Amino acid sequence: MIVVLKPHATQEMITRIVRRVEALGLKAHVLVGAERTVVAAIGDKRGDAQLELESCDEVEKVLPILAPYKIASRETRREPTVVTAGSLVVGGGTIGVIAGPCSVESEAQIMLAASQVKAAGATALRGGAFKPRTSPYAFQGLKEAGLKLLAAAREATGLAIVTEVMTPHHVDMVAQYADVLQIGARNMQNYHLLQAVGEIRKPVLLKRGPSATIEEFLLAAEYILDQGNTQVMLCERGIRTFETHTRFTLPLATVPYLREKTHLPILVDPSHGTGIASLVPAMSAASIAAGCDGLILEVHPDPSQAVSDGAQTLTPAAFEATMATCRKVAAALGRTM
Amino acid sequence: MIVVLKPHATQEMITRIVRRVEALGLKAHVLVGAERTVVAAIGDKRGDAQLELESCDEVEKVLPILAPYKIASRETRREPTVVTAGSLVVGGGTIGVIAGPCSVESEAQIMLAASQVKAAGATALRGGAFKPRTSPYAFQGLKEAGLKLLAAAREATGLAIVTEVMTPHHVDMVAQYADVLQIGARNMQNYHLLQAVGEIRKPVLLKRGPSATIEEFLLAAEYILDQGNTQVMLCERGIRTFETHTRFTLPLATVPYLREKTHLPILVDPSHGTGIASLVPAMSAASIAAGCDGLILEVHPDPSQAVSDGAQTLTPAAFEATMATCRKVAAALGRTM
Amino acid sequence: MIVVLKPHATQEMITRIVRRVEALGLKAHVLVGAERTVVAAIGDKRGDAQLELESCDEVEKVLPILAPYKIASRETRREPTVVTAGSLVVGGGTIGVIAGPCSVESEAQIMLAASQVKAAGATALRGGAFKPRTSPYAFQGLKEAGLKLLAAAREATGLAIVTEVMTPHHVDMVAQYADVLQIGARNMQNYHLLQAVGEIRKPVLLKRGPSATIEEFLLAAEYILDQGNTQVMLCERGIRTFETHTRFTLPLATVPYLREKTHLPILVDPSHGTGIASLVPAMSAASIAAGCDGLILEVHPDPSQAVSDGAQTLTPAAFEATMATCRKVAAALGRTM
Amino acid sequence: MIVVLKPHATQEMITRIVRRVEALGLKAHVLVGAERTVVAAIGDKRGDAQLELESCDEVEKVLPILAPYKIASRETRREPTVVTAGSLVVGGGTIGVIAGPCSVESEAQIMLAASQVKAAGATALRGGAFKPRTSPYAFQGLKEAGLKLLAAAREATGLAIVTEVMTPHHVDMVAQYADVLQIGARNMQNYHLLQAVGEIRKPVLLKRGPSATIEEFLLAAEYILDQGNTQVMLCERGIRTFETHTRFTLPLATVPYLREKTHLPILVDPSHGTGIASLVPAMSAASIAAGCDGLILEVHPDPSQAVSDGAQTLTPAAFEATMATCRKVAAALGRTM
Repeated sequence: MIVVLKPHATQEMITRIVRRVEALGLKAHVLVGAERTVVAAIGDKRGDAQLELESCDEVEKVLPILAPYKIASRETRREPTVVTAGSLVVGGGTIGVIAGPCSVESEAQIMLAASQVKAAGATALRGGAFKPRTSPYAFQGLKEAGLKLLAAAREATGLAIVTEVMTPHHVDMVAQYADVLQIGARNMQNYHLLQAVGEIRKPVLLKRGPSATIEEFLLAAEYILDQGNTQVMLCERGIRTFETHTRFTLPLATVPYLREKTHLPILVDPSHGTGIASLVPAMSAASIAAGCDGLILEVHPDPSQAVSDGAQTLTPAAFEATMATCRKVAAALGRTM
Repeated sequence: MIVVLKPHATQEMITRIVRRVEALGLKAHVLVGAERTVVAAIGDKRGDAQLELESCDEVEKVLPILAPYKIASRETRREPTVVTAGSLVVGGGTIGVIAGPCSVESEAQIMLAASQVKAAGATALRGGAFKPRTSPYAFQGLKEAGLKLLAAAREATGLAIVTEVMTPHHVDMVAQYADVLQIGARNMQNYHLLQAVGEIRKPVLLKRGPSATIEEFLLAAEYILDQGNTQVMLCERGIRTFETHTRFTLPLATVPYLREKTHLPILVDPSHGTGIASLVPAMSAASIAAGCDGLILEVHPDPSQAVSDGAQTLTPAAFEATMATCRKVAAALGRTM
Repeated sequence: MIVVLKPHATQEMITRIVRRVEALGLKAHVLVGAERTVVAAIGDKRGDAQLELESCDEVEKVLPILAPYKIASRETRREPTVVTAGSLVVGGGTIGVIAGPCSVESEAQIMLAASQVKAAGATALRGGAFKPRTSPYAFQGLKEAGLKLLAAAREATGLAIVTEVMTPHHVDMVAQYADVLQIGARNMQNYHLLQAVGEIRKPVLLKRGPSATIEEFLLAAEYILDQGNTQVMLCERGIRTFETHTRFTLPLATVPYLREKTHLPILVDPSHGTGIASLVPAMSAASIAAGCDGLILEVHPDPSQAVSDGAQTLTPAAFEATMATCRKVAAALGRTM
Repeated sequence: MIVVLKPHATQEMITRIVRRVEALGLKAHVLVGAERTVVAAIGDKRGDAQLELESCDEVEKVLPILAPYKIASRETRREPTVVTAGSLVVGGGTIGVIAGPCSVESEAQIMLAASQVKAAGATALRGGAFKPRTSPYAFQGLKEAGLKLLAAAREATGLAIVTEVMTPHHVDMVAQYADVLQIGARNMQNYHLLQAVGEIRKPVLLKRGPSATIEEFLLAAEYILDQGNTQVMLCERGIRTFETHTRFTLPLATVPYLREKTHLPILVDPSHGTGIASLVPAMSAASIAAGCDGLILEVHPDPSQAVSDGAQTLTPAAFEATMATCRKVAAALGRTM
């Protein structure tokens, strides 16, 4: 950590900061420059040290050297983590595809959707039973009845089930039916929920919050990992920017950047990332080319009848075409899909 | 709702959309323009109707006419809502000031802080017992012990207590000690939590999420109101933008804009909104001048010893000076503080 | 255009707005809804009409139906525009690759760079002679001497030259040496410059401004097209968002989205779009998979010796590997590169 | 400057970087930490040094210690710069108010506007003769005829004239008529234009670009100052964020933040900063309370007839009321207006 002192720091000020640094269990090293004095604080210290030093009167700013996450870091573990959940394998060169409707609507709908996405090559089924909706007046999901329909769809197709859990006291119930628990973007910093899914031993798909930095994203994963659950998949699903022509802005550089920083597998959600079905095929192919380990896509037997997110949902035919294109790109890059 | 059809819409396409609109219980009105046909959908329909129409193949885009929130709207209720919680009164011309440390750290600290902020004119005490922290390795709060210390500080000073609740199953416990339950920015769209605080009958201070639009913010309030809890205060605390010189960007136009849209009282948090203690006094005065109903400010007996958020925390002396300035501005504008 | 009146609009207010709409040469159509009255203004009118109506007291908001650009629109011209400039062909299924150093530094440097990028398959040479630099103390380019070196590099390699022009009175001089004139991101809304390059008859590469919406981007192109220059290439080079781990955020959904809206060719600049050389190969491949018509990439014989932008510049070897990967992706998608 | 090496840096790598640092004329100081080695580069070096080091293979990142601007910095000059231009005085405790229409439309309009804003207390007249417009089909200004009308309005009222210059070859012409040359937000990084206004000796009002960081803003000012023109006013006019309920987001913390960093006077433009006339009075008062040195406001005799920006333009009556409120706030804070 580099502690930059305010201009014209006196010897007394420097001494005070050196003592603070040492009190934190770090070694202090003073460097007097032309216009500023800086104190380098050496040692392996994460957590609150930076904040404590920033609040000192003498300090202009604190520049961290180390990333604040640890278990998620590639420096802690070099080999890629491979997540396996029934039919779904993600990471280590294998690309998984999770597809299905935004919401579970009925037995007929989810069964048809499951068989359609399976036929086109999906390796897991997604479907929301508990739906976080911006408006209290919008459809909120079939809840446990929806989970049961998902389990029935797994029974019928063999596809692993990926579904969202919204609150800690639902974790056990959802885990009873699902193969992968999804943490939605709005809940990326719902720490009680992160800890709750950290305590079980089922894979977690963690979506990036729409205004989360990469550090915050990895620290959210760290909350789960820190509880002992090592099966965490990261999912880029678009960030909120000034752009309004798409629902969110899908920043694909996240994929190779995360690859350098973490061993966890990286998925992309081009459905939420664009919000427009006609853009999803191109962005799916682009995600594969960017090097992702998997895709999560909204597919519905008839998007125009979907109770939620229809505008960004692929028809089964469009999904099939998208899969064909993605497979070609993956093959060109020597990857398995 | 205005449904814009794709270019060169055929009569058949128009008919299909008219039927969809009518199936939603709305009246359809077709307008054929030079380059586009639009279908105006007339009627009072909130919720999913827009999404359903957007997902139709024939549709280019859907333009909503009505705001999606209702109970929070000024059109539903013209008179300002005044929230009262013990010593704290907010709204209807009265400005409340909630001040105190980021975290409750010890009995001595919270007692001293409470007496200091009271002496300077604060009308409520803030202090975190459950702390949502970006890193799992950072201090997470004293939990129930912290709540007890807050209650003791109320006992000693008469100040109403404002403190955060992070998860639904803590709502009853926190409500037992606190006068106002705070929903933090990270939890603005934690819908189970919103519903849980909607079910109790204590005032709620709802912070805007750092990437929430005003519509999403008011819809989050609507989740609480819809459960029957009418005592909701809105708090602007800064949004995430490309700016990095401040922790967040504090968009004060939220204050007069919300005033036009809602009857709920509007607070500002210049501490989180800037992240830099030296900017807080000017931004507190600016918030008052912008017309807010209250401030929430971080004040600590010794910010350089604070376990969290020290860099944005005022000293008791700086808080006193800030209060003096704010009172002058309020008086100049004919408001009570 | 849909003019939404304020709540409780009186007959008199409605009549006033109808007259304003008609005075603009549009047909007015009044629709009385449950909570709002809207006036649909029908006719083909771009430009200021929306702004004029928005400023009326009676009006809550104006919702445009038509895009404000015309010549750039796919509705005006269905076939893709193909831009040809010497060795560079972009559009209509052919992918062009413009590569070279950020700045022209010396004869030896640009000659070596040109031969290296040509050997790896680039179809045009980039190099800055006039450099817009954030700091007045940074290297500002070799100016006309740099243009002469670029022309010499074309002589030696046959590669078309792409270089930036920063101000209207340099347009003729730059056009004398260059095959394509580049308008940098900072100048996307420098309208005198856009008009000046619109008046010549050489292709223009227009970069998106870092906070430009797609509409503003296409309207900037429209400034050039409106002067009679039809040879305009659009280039996505990243937008400014809250993300700081990359220099800009590269929103690749721009590629398929622009494809739906315009007939102009679409390039991507992964060098500026990420600012980090190690991310450029993956994002180049992703750009091709997203469907772009070309890439512009920074390549330097020795990036660590580059006078500008070294951190985002590929080595010749990395460029060669990137080209190999991109060619595989292009081939998989049936495109020529 | 702190140069952070990649993990596991060898002695050879360290030596290479030390040599690079020394070759830049800086002193190198090596610090070996638990997980990283950093090289502190000590000396007063602005400009390209950071970029050069960032591009070295051995380097993970470079953390600058010093701000890159110099003449604009408060460390260079402690006393506030006061800008005087005829009737307009800005800085050093005196608040100036520049008001008038977005565009000069006719003699009658500008004469009436000038007398109205003067009567309400404005100390300078604004009005656009050259108008940068997003669409080539929108009104582009009366050009030199507009400048002549502005000069006539000065003649009649004594108000100093503030007007925009868009391109270097217009600088002399505009300077012939105007008292203050405005650089619009779109041109904040139009460096030839900045240098051209730096060469004359008339005050310049420099608007912040909608996606400019504070460093970029001050470096743009530095371009002007570096040419010898010391009379530069900075103007915050709103940034582009995800917010769409206002035209831009007005980040008032810019005011106290810039105050700490620079001696230049700081203005605010609440008209562009919000884009909505009804929000302008509150945001004007908030700007004064935040400590700004001046306001620039759009006022038109009849905003509903304005050829541009009507929706954000105050009526003369609203301007008068705004001035009255602002004067009260200024007086409460002991400032002259």
